[in-house]
Amino acid sequence: MSISKDEQTIAQMMEDWARALERRDAAAMTANYAPDVALFDVKPPYALQGVDAYRATWEACFPYLPRRFRSERKDIALTVGADLAFCHCLSRIAPVDEPDHPAGGTWIRITVCFQKRDGRWLVVHEHGSLPFDPMTEKVVYIGDREAETA
Amino acid sequence: MSISKDEQTIAQMMEDWARALERRDAAAMTANYAPDVALFDVKPPYALQGVDAYRATWEACFPYLPRRFRSERKDIALTVGADLAFCHCLSRIAPVDEPDHPAGGTWIRITVCFQKRDGRWLVVHEHGSLPFDPMTEKVVYIGDREAETA
Repeated sequence: MSISKDEQTIAQMMEDWARALERRDAAAMTANYAPDVALFDVKPPYALQGVDAYRATWEACFPYLPRRFRSERKDIALTVGADLAFCHCLSRIAPVDEPDHPAGGTWIRITVCFQKRDGRWLVVHEHGSLPFDPMTEKVVYIGDREAETA
Repeated sequence: MSISKDEQTIAQMMEDWARALERRDAAAMTANYAPDVALFDVKPPYALQGVDAYRATWEACFPYLPRRFRSERKDIALTVGADLAFCHCLSRIAPVDEPDHPAGGTWIRITVCFQKRDGRWLVVHEHGSLPFDPMTEKVVYIGDREAETA
């Protein structure tokens, strides 16, 4: 399998994840996650271990999402090696009918790390966050303007 | 070069970075950073591109650090492949003489991604963060107790 084919595979995995999120399908979201995936989520707890915990935290999140939304990404930088890969990007929830829905207020920074195990790419680590102001201890949202001019 | 030797090399790179930070030596901190490193820092801006920007943001940070401190890490998970590697861990500033110094108040979540270029390992991406409470928009510090019981 050439690197180019691996890049296509991983890009498709991320697309499939986004489409699964849009239909609130936690099982499909975790179809390519390693059993021992380690998550640094945007909200506490600061670390989650394992695909079951990852699935549960998303299921708990679903009621807080807009009724209909697109899961969007931008500034995608994907690096694919022989047996590991990683990607960093911005990701957001874009509400379809509720432009002021709080879940759509910011881009989120995402780093995803992949490992090829027995010939199959799996997500083994994911880190999502916003930056924060050390003086106020408040997070700083990433709006469209900031994300376009950076 | 065997995987084990690569693991040693990368672990030593991270040790060297910590010792360089303790002596406020930004040049040594960036000795193994790629010219095009992409940083998601704990504070705004949400993304920095390039080793010069990385060095400058640390130099601007030095006056806010304790006079003497140790740069500590824990919960280190390092995955090394043929040509890429990544590590996630907790990192903190541990003041030596000023136990209540604000820079020492929390562990930080760190993900570091490495690429072997022309036979040499370089940091190509780094993502540091704290989780936040979506209701208050405030970050949630990671104390010793949380870091030990997770």
